[in-house]
Amino acid sequence: GIALRCQRGGVGMAVIGFTRSRGIGVSAILGMGNKVDIDEDDLLEFFAQDPNTRVIAIHMEDVKDGLAFMKAAKRVSKIKPVVALKTGRTPLGSRAAASHTAALAGADEVFDAAFRQSGVIRARTLFELLDWARVLYMLPQPQGENIFIHTSAGGLGVILADALYDHGLKAMEIPADLEQALRKYIPVFGSFKNPIDVTGSSTPEVQAESAKIAIRDPRVHSIVFGYWHTIITPPMVFARAIGEAVEEARKEGIVKPMVASLSGDVEVEEAARYLEAKGIPSYPYSPDQAVSALAAVYRWARNAGVVQVKKESE
Amino acid sequence: GIALRCQRGGVGMAVIGFTRSRGIGVSAILGMGNKVDIDEDDLLEFFAQDPNTRVIAIHMEDVKDGLAFMKAAKRVSKIKPVVALKTGRTPLGSRAAASHTAALAGADEVFDAAFRQSGVIRARTLFELLDWARVLYMLPQPQGENIFIHTSAGGLGVILADALYDHGLKAMEIPADLEQALRKYIPVFGSFKNPIDVTGSSTPEVQAESAKIAIRDPRVHSIVFGYWHTIITPPMVFARAIGEAVEEARKEGIVKPMVASLSGDVEVEEAARYLEAKGIPSYPYSPDQAVSALAAVYRWARNAGVVQVKKESE
Repeated sequence: GIALRCQRGGVGMAVIGFTRSRGIGVSAILGMGNKVDIDEDDLLEFFAQDPNTRVIAIHMEDVKDGLAFMKAAKRVSKIKPVVALKTGRTPLGSRAAASHTAALAGADEVFDAAFRQSGVIRARTLFELLDWARVLYMLPQPQGENIFIHTSAGGLGVILADALYDHGLKAMEIPADLEQALRKYIPVFGSFKNPIDVTGSSTPEVQAESAKIAIRDPRVHSIVFGYWHTIITPPMVFARAIGEAVEEARKEGIVKPMVASLSGDVEVEEAARYLEAKGIPSYPYSPDQAVSALAAVYRWARNAGVVQVKKESE
Repeated sequence: GIALRCQRGGVGMAVIGFTRSRGIGVSAILGMGNKVDIDEDDLLEFFAQDPNTRVIAIHMEDVKDGLAFMKAAKRVSKIKPVVALKTGRTPLGSRAAASHTAALAGADEVFDAAFRQSGVIRARTLFELLDWARVLYMLPQPQGENIFIHTSAGGLGVILADALYDHGLKAMEIPADLEQALRKYIPVFGSFKNPIDVTGSSTPEVQAESAKIAIRDPRVHSIVFGYWHTIITPPMVFARAIGEAVEEARKEGIVKPMVASLSGDVEVEEAARYLEAKGIPSYPYSPDQAVSALAAVYRWARNAGVVQVKKESE
């Protein structure tokens, strides 16, 4: 469901392994080279209509007709997420680009403003382009800005909170009745201010029941899981418990964006793959990437008017 | 060979899976909690002397005695690399930290200056902390600032050049005799300005011979490989060719820091693991991470006086 339009074949190749390795599909890959006839705006219009494409990813070193691109992007980005990686954005990179396709790299600030004004989500690295595209494909639209951090380690909660702040996301204030509901399961030495720390002593039941409360509460719009490997709830036990809770809710039509960060021994990698198969983008050892991916979804949702902008993040 | 000292157990767990998954070892993991008796500077002094520790990684939410830490870090960081992740650095993260260990998160700019002045390499994310620690463990010291980018795709070369600039590294100017040597193997439509583009048409021989020239030239201090998946030189063929060239050179005592970024189908993941086993940190789909890791090595080498600072990067 991801269309990748790129200036170079070598960059396009990256998406093949990345998406296969993560079990998702690509609707089209285009290498445009010197763009003698077809330009960026033509392709945006095409992919906006293409029923097989849900997300449009762009790698560009230059743009031929900036105004046409912006006009098309502004329209299309409200219908489908458009993620772009502009390379050749530094003096060194720009020199390298010029030596190859004779592309004149524009001032980077101009691209920054153009992307922002036209609702294009700008990736800074190839990994961000690829990862954000697949997460925008995987996750449903958020219904609001209230994010719930569910963690079993206080230190991970701090890291996730830092990441939320960095990426312009909001940790929701926990209403009193929600706190009361959580207190039924979470030990008193946990934390009931967001991040919610269910503590490392949590049994699978505590993890699952506290997660279910967040999944089912309509005031919670998105969830970030921060899992810490314990003997009481090993990685795959956690993954199955969360996976079941998510699937049960889905049967009743309850869906919301969720991402997970996992910290522990190598089994967390298997648990991450399991959660991904359940529709939860999951990152072993990389809490920042989990939040960065969720933030990409919010950037799109705000631009498309799906959620109201409560905090300017870009 | 990596000692991890962290404020929280949950963060410490992340290093276990990360290092095991990448086939390297940890000499010690310490969870310090509220630090009633032992403080950061005690541990720095201990690990500086510990023969089993080559790299010191620190996760901290606060510091008890800032001046003692700086004094110890300044001394120790010239002997062994010290990488630190300070969390609770945003208003949101700091609130989360305070609720748990009663740590008073200091103004982030103060930590920034303290780390810089004492030669501590500051990681911004948990992944950076873990990845930089293992790369500082794996790679030899660079002998100078001349970095050679060896790529088989022009677009990847541009991305790598952007990353070098972002991370304060220098793409060396290619001397005329080195260019002549490279021209023996690389097609005329390649690029002989750094990034060196050996082109997607390269046979395994062209890849290996051009790499050997860079590996063996004493004016080349570090190498960044940017591999693009082709039918002519599939990922594992590339990996074995480079692996052999590196091992041959090592037998003659030639070692230098090398990192690789691989773009292509899922086989690049196997090729990355193969190259890692040969001592080359390798990143599928993530050119920026490869360069970021090499930059951590340079930050340490400059601080320790191993290479002269030619460009201020932090």
